Parts: sequence; C-alpha cells; structure tokens
Amino acid sequence: MTSEASLLDQLRTLATNPAARGLADDVALLGDLVLTHDTVVEGVHYLPSDPPESVGWKLGAVNLSDLAAKGAAPVGALLSLSIGHDPGWEERFLAGLAQLCEHYRLPLLGGDTVALPAGAPRVLGLTAIGRAAAAVPSRSGGRPGDRLWLVGTVGDSAAGLACLLADRAATGLLVDIYRRPIPLLDLGASFAPHATATMDVSDGLLLDSWRLARASGCGLHLDLASLPLSSAFVAERGQDRAARLFAATGGDDYALLVALPPAVDGLTLWQGEPVRITPVGELVDNGVFTLVDDLGPVPLPERLGYEHHPS
Amino acid sequence: MTSEASLLDQLRTLATNPAARGLADDVALLGDLVLTHDTVVEGVHYLPSDPPESVGWKLGAVNLSDLAAKGAAPVGALLSLSIGHDPGWEERFLAGLAQLCEHYRLPLLGGDTVALPAGAPRVLGLTAIGRAAAAVPSRSGGRPGDRLWLVGTVGDSAAGLACLLADRAATGLLVDIYRRPIPLLDLGASFAPHATATMDVSDGLLLDSWRLARASGCGLHLDLASLPLSSAFVAERGQDRAARLFAATGGDDYALLVALPPAVDGLTLWQGEPVRITPVGELVDNGVFTLVDDLGPVPLPERLGYEHHPS
Repeated sequence: MTSEASLLDQLRTLATNPAARGLADDVALLGDLVLTHDTVVEGVHYLPSDPPESVGWKLGAVNLSDLAAKGAAPVGALLSLSIGHDPGWEERFLAGLAQLCEHYRLPLLGGDTVALPAGAPRVLGLTAIGRAAAAVPSRSGGRPGDRLWLVGTVGDSAAGLACLLADRAATGLLVDIYRRPIPLLDLGASFAPHATATMDVSDGLLLDSWRLARASGCGLHLDLASLPLSSAFVAERGQDRAARLFAATGGDDYALLVALPPAVDGLTLWQGEPVRITPVGELVDNGVFTLVDDLGPVPLPERLGYEHHPS
Repeated sequence: MTSEASLLDQLRTLATNPAARGLADDVALLGDLVLTHDTVVEGVHYLPSDPPESVGWKLGAVNLSDLAAKGAAPVGALLSLSIGHDPGWEERFLAGLAQLCEHYRLPLLGGDTVALPAGAPRVLGLTAIGRAAAAVPSRSGGRPGDRLWLVGTVGDSAAGLACLLADRAATGLLVDIYRRPIPLLDLGASFAPHATATMDVSDGLLLDSWRLARASGCGLHLDLASLPLSSAFVAERGQDRAARLFAATGGDDYALLVALPPAVDGLTLWQGEPVRITPVGELVDNGVFTLVDDLGPVPLPERLGYEHHPS
C-alpha cells in the first residue's frame, strides 16, 4: 500500500506549470478556463447497489461542485466510461448523467469508453471544464482573521449513506440527498469574487477546512455548535456533539467553504433562493486546529474526514 | 454486456455542442484548445506484467498521439490515478509518466487519486490538453479522391505484444516499441494544416481508416502491399498477406493517418528526421471498403482491429 501523501509529493514534481497551482487546488486554470477531474470507484465512492442513474448524476454533480467553488460556469465535459457486464447498467448510468447535463447545460465534448475484465469494479471519470467570469480564488489565499463561511449544510449525505449501509433498501430524504447532490453553481459565482480562498466540502468539513487552512498557511478555529444541520439530519441522528462530529466528518456534502475578509458579511452576498449561509469559524495565525462547541473545547477526532487511501 | 455502438448513440445525444464534433473525433475543441481523454485498464490495455514505468509512459503517449493527429502542441494534463495494493507500483508508474512529461514538456495540471478495492484491476486515465496553431482537421472532412497517407509504421507493437503473450520475459525491439510508443507531434503539426481529415492509428489500420472513411461519408480503397513494415517486424512475422493483415489489424501503433487532396504530395510536407511516409490508399465515393494486395482482392478479415468491447 502506498500513502497518498507520498504520491502527491511525487505528482507535485510534475506539476511545474503555474496553471497547476502546485496541485494544492481541486482545479487547474488555463486562461479563463477552469478544469477539474473526479473519478468514482464502485464500492469505494458509491455502493454497488446504488441506482446507476444516481451514480451518473453524482459523477457530474461532484465535478460541477468543484467548478462551483471557483465561481465557474460549466462549459463542457469529457467522460471516461468503463463498460462492465451487467446488462443495461451503462444505459441507466448515462440517463442519470444526461439528466445532470441537461439540467446544468453541460455538453459532453468527448472522452473514452473502455472494457473492464469480468468482475472488475467500475471506475468512472469525468473531466469538467468551466469558464470563470472573475479572478478564480485558490484554496491557499486565506489570511489570518478571515471568517470561514459554509454555504449549504453538512451531514445529510453521510447520514443517508449510513441508512443505506444499515439497509440497502432504505429510502427517504437523507438517502435522496446522498444520491443526488446539487452543485451550488450560482452561489459559488456570487461568493467567489469576494473570497480569499474557496473549496467545496467533499471529504468532510473538518478535513476540507483544515486543508484550506494549511494551504493558506493558517491555523483554524472551528465552532461545531454553529454547524447548520437540516431537520431531516436532526430527526435521524440528533444534534449532540457526536451527531455534529458525524456531520462534520462524513463527507459527500458538496457544500461550499468560503474564506471571506472579516469586513465582508457573507449573508449579503446572495439574493437568490433561501439557502443556509453560516459562519462556522475563522482562519488564525497560530497554525493550530482548534475545535469548540457550546460545552468548550472538542478533542479532534482521529479521522477528520474521508481520506482516499486504499482500504 | 452492452454494445459500445448503442452506448455511443446514447452518448451522442449528450454531445450537442459543436465543440464535441458529434463525438466523431478523438478530440474536443474549445477555442484553440484541443482536449482528449484516454483511459487504460490493467489486463485490457496493458499486461499486468508490463513494467509500471512503461504503463505511465504509454498513458501519456497515447493521449499525446491524439493531439499529434490534430497538429496540436501539448499544454497540460489531468491525471486520474487509481491506487492499488502492490507496494511501489504507483511510484514506478509516475516515474514513467514523469519521463514522458519531461520529454514532451507536458505539465501535470491536476486530476484525482482514488483508492481501489483489493484485487481490482487498475484503471488509469489522462486528459491531455493541447493548443492548435492552425485549423484543426476533423476525422470527417475527407472527400472522395483524397489519398490516405500513413505516417509511421504499423504492426511493430502488436508483434511485440504477441512476443510477450508467448513469453512474459520476452525482450527486443518489438517489445520496446509496444512499451514505448512515440507520439508524432512534430509530424502531426506539419501534416494537419494540409489535411482534409486526420486521426491516429490506435486500434488497427483497417479499423481506424474505415472509421475515418465512414465519418467522411466515403468508401475506402486500401492497398495492403503498400504497408510500410519495419525490418524487425518482417524478421519476426514475415511480410506475406497474413503478416500484413496482422500488421493492419493489430493496433497500438500510434502512427498517423492523414487524408490529403490528390494534388498534395505527402512526401513534401516533412523536412525533419527520416520517417516512413506512405500512401496506403484513397477515399472513394462508392461507400465500400475494398482491400487489395499484389495478388488481387483481399477478403476483409472479420476483425478489422481492436474494438473496445468487454471480453
């Protein structure tokens, strides 16, 4: 087993171009084009029992979420489609991806189809290309004193996945949210021009906000009590410290994390449909990650989020 | 099992943007940027016993070959790296990819790393982005009367693979060519401005030239006797009709296929280092694929090349 960290070090030696941003970001920049690639693996990023349509939707949505975090509008996508051995799976997958592409006006521009050996888990990749209207915030531009704003909620998807892991036939709001993430494109476009740093929350709020803070050379103060939890989440898992830690480490949220200078009120940046926009912490200059809630300091959990290590 | 053809029909309904060229090409166009994505699967596109370094080189090279066919210069790449369970495999793979990136000044711009379940075959993808200096020839612009020129040779790589399938420890020129394809970037840039249609030969000359002819709404006349065969190929497999059919259907060649108007002599378009530049046939207006050699008409083999169907 190889650690992802050492591979990333090796990858960085190949990423000499400024467009790569030292691989410290989820996207690359070429002129005003923003490029991102996300890959999902059967049994790792989705359940083999997940409906193929939802896998197709989700593959598109998680890539668009990366564009959303950078304030970019979708331009097109290239699909890497591996073809397996269940009759009809790919048609249903493509129907879900088509729904996403229609909804967000994301034309498919090309890609590749490959055969899989019998029994191999599917590996599906999408390269999404967007166009940024303004300067594209990086992950690393945050400064001590910036407030961290969460756009959207966390925990719903992980709670939905937990329901499915307990019962593959589970249904309900949380399962729907797990299967059908919504990329916050308009919100990202509204926040990006004002932000010092942005990213989407895909691997868990604690992990991703710590990544943003480290990339920005900052420490992090986060208030678990401030987390916006949906009523569906609270009904399923409550809202005590354990529930909040679950929400903050679960991942698959596709909320946006935005660092704003202290003078900027995040609530004023969005005039569209109602959405939870919440200050959850701030970047600090001490290099330390401090987590608190209403009861006082919270010990950092061993696992801050979903790390893509081989299991 | 799903047929690739019906999936491609479904994909085309998503490819409404002109940049997609109806998915009839190996690349997409966004302004002067040329984008392509190729994925390789362990046990399908490479042997599990292949050295990881050569898999890394080859993944880069096959993508650059698509850029070469369009006359585009490399700008950058996004890597989808799946992490398996053999210690050190990924480091060696990345060392091979790094060699390619250095050699062709292809900076890595981003991508994704994902874990694989134990025992899963690796699936490795690369999105390559290039910049075209002139108009980018499509696969579909050929006209009846155009001559088809082959730039490079065919058969070497398939012969090398056959050696390895007979003996995993085989070595030699043909094995080297199989493991280390050379993208013909400068040649592509010289031919593209004069071509009515181009593509690279990755799946076999018969299959790929027939694809070009069909995309151009033409028939095809191909002379098997004209095929440029390397001396290493001839030493291994001879040069009779069977050997030539093997060379024309083997795939993994990464030669370039260029349709030129009859008034253009392909031999005059290249002043660089010696390379085989050979007229191998022409596009015709009868919609039929005719194959001949010195002995007369050659029945089309059942398999024109490497189709990416699940096995």
